[in-house]
Amino acid sequence: MKYPNGIKKTYESKVSYGNRGMTLEEDLNISNEYYRDTNEAIIYKKPTPITIHKVDFPSRREAIIRDARFGIPSTTDYNGIYRGKYIDFEAKETTNKTSFPLSNIHAHQITHLCRIIEHGGIGFLIVRFTSFNETYLLEGKDFFQFIDNEKRKSIPRTYFQKVGKLIPIGLRPRLDYLKYIEVNNENK
Amino acid sequence: MKYPNGIKKTYESKVSYGNRGMTLEEDLNISNEYYRDTNEAIIYKKPTPITIHKVDFPSRREAIIRDARFGIPSTTDYNGIYRGKYIDFEAKETTNKTSFPLSNIHAHQITHLCRIIEHGGIGFLIVRFTSFNETYLLEGKDFFQFIDNEKRKSIPRTYFQKVGKLIPIGLRPRLDYLKYIEVNNENK
Repeated sequence: MKYPNGIKKTYESKVSYGNRGMTLEEDLNISNEYYRDTNEAIIYKKPTPITIHKVDFPSRREAIIRDARFGIPSTTDYNGIYRGKYIDFEAKETTNKTSFPLSNIHAHQITHLCRIIEHGGIGFLIVRFTSFNETYLLEGKDFFQFIDNEKRKSIPRTYFQKVGKLIPIGLRPRLDYLKYIEVNNENK
Repeated sequence: MKYPNGIKKTYESKVSYGNRGMTLEEDLNISNEYYRDTNEAIIYKKPTPITIHKVDFPSRREAIIRDARFGIPSTTDYNGIYRGKYIDFEAKETTNKTSFPLSNIHAHQITHLCRIIEHGGIGFLIVRFTSFNETYLLEGKDFFQFIDNEKRKSIPRTYFQKVGKLIPIGLRPRLDYLKYIEVNNENK
């Protein structure tokens, strides 16, 4: 996107929240918008899956969904293209102070992430410990390393501190997570 | 996915529709399921974007959406990974007999497809002329070639016949569209 002279686009939400108060999803959405505008990557959040049972048509051009339920996602929430490669990740917040409960991620999503990596895609998790306002990126391989070797049903915060990468809150983009992923190809 | 001895999974819908009657979306969904099961590609349809205005919680575990509207998609409907590459496409049916009206595709989706190709992804359209039960794959480059050089607001069926590829209806997978895309990389 090109903006006319003198117009600067800001990637903050209309209301200023300061460093706290914005959800991880909001932070990622404006960061992805920034990446798209700067043409660094084309990444979107997928819509929430919904099963529709009833739709009203009050007029020819209007459709109102009157009965629908939330579905269980088969895949992770975010995907797109970065440096010519397929990129895919799941993002979750936890209020837990000591660990990230694996129950936060559906089994389907874990399988999906695993297959993406097998197919040569870039796959990872972004986890925020809201109590500390800490956001970590955990590479897929490190996530599966944990799952394969530990019987615990949650990943300790210390594991993120040791193996993950802390993503600082910035301005443009707000969460520069692409800087923290490992891309093993000739383009980097 | 591995199935126990003697159990054969079929990729047809429960009700037999014969060669006609299944929508393009249904054909693509079962074809993508086949590709995932055979591990050839990981491709999913994105959920329809919806803006939710009101949710009821009749019980602790139940959420019923009571007021929601359909949103306009920012991206194409299908994406995933194939031979290590990002793949992205839009699929549309038309009852029109002579041409495919471009009004069927949102401007956002056209821009999105263009950017995907610029970023090195595989991008294309799948268009079905339902009157003839003909399904064509049109490479992104050929789609943009048409848009850039023609002022017409619809793509003639003859253009699909000349430049596109006719995808026959098969059994497993039902629409073997991956066979018809051009992948210019070392993996092929």
